[in-house]
Amino acid sequence: MTTTIFDFVGSNQGEWKVTSMTTLKGEVLAPITHLQKVASTLEQSENGIWTLKGVISNLRYTEKEDKEKLVAIQEDLGRASATFAAFIPIRKSEAWWNLAQDERRKIMENKSQHTHTGMKYLPAIARKLFHSRDIGQPFDFLTYFEYAPTDANAFEELLYALRTTEEWTYIDREVEIRLIK
Amino acid sequence: MTTTIFDFVGSNQGEWKVTSMTTLKGEVLAPITHLQKVASTLEQSENGIWTLKGVISNLRYTEKEDKEKLVAIQEDLGRASATFAAFIPIRKSEAWWNLAQDERRKIMENKSQHTHTGMKYLPAIARKLFHSRDIGQPFDFLTYFEYAPTDANAFEELLYALRTTEEWTYIDREVEIRLIK
Repeated sequence: MTTTIFDFVGSNQGEWKVTSMTTLKGEVLAPITHLQKVASTLEQSENGIWTLKGVISNLRYTEKEDKEKLVAIQEDLGRASATFAAFIPIRKSEAWWNLAQDERRKIMENKSQHTHTGMKYLPAIARKLFHSRDIGQPFDFLTYFEYAPTDANAFEELLYALRTTEEWTYIDREVEIRLIK
Repeated sequence: MTTTIFDFVGSNQGEWKVTSMTTLKGEVLAPITHLQKVASTLEQSENGIWTLKGVISNLRYTEKEDKEKLVAIQEDLGRASATFAAFIPIRKSEAWWNLAQDERRKIMENKSQHTHTGMKYLPAIARKLFHSRDIGQPFDFLTYFEYAPTDANAFEELLYALRTTEEWTYIDREVEIRLIK
């Protein structure tokens, strides 16, 4: 077990009950009724109906000023009040990965305002990004959000804002799984 | 086997013979006489005296103009003429990883001129960077260089230039292994 590598195990049992599962783009994921997030290793586990593995890494695009703000106001996953969650694995196209660092950064920051959009909803919506591309997983990123039922509207706003950015046009596979504890 | 995950297996047999092994900073690596680079998976292998695993990823700092130049002039590993090699696993300090993206970028590009330094020695010195930090390895990066004996002086120049950069001051573990085929 590590503190940076996690498995999201989709099955018929687990901490989080699936309330909806929608394929927005690309291949579907096999239906599940429950999702469990567990500390793991790089060994490929065959648990549940499917297992998606992701790694917590350093922030790749966030600049100093924003990073300090983020660290000051963001809250951890696992708050007792956060009984709603969303698990949204995404894959970006080859066109995205062929961009140079400054091109990706421009899309993330100048145009998409990716960091500022997320920050607007802190600390209400706790977010964590798990990296999957470099470890040969079927998705590039596993995005994960936890929030209280009273912040459900704020979460819908955040998700809408993220999906209407230029960055999102590079996504070629996206599955949205809504969860309740 | 994948095309992006590699094991560097240090042992008493293999394609590359070790001509020298020097610990520049931090903990030593157990002595070996040969090194072999093999296509691998994420499963931890217990081959040889030690095995260091790395993943080829997207370029994290290179900007568009430089990326296009790099792609146009760099050559692949495995050239018949490239019978000299250097394998230099490095780890950067927590201070480095706590920097924000713009701070790291400034050190890499404005101050260290990391990309331009390497480019000056292309295509003579073939380079490849393998990422190890996110997969829980003892080093953050496995740097690897191949070149012809006639370019040995150029390689020493390149290595000296890299080591005198501000970026290198963040390195807290570094072992240099020189190789001949």
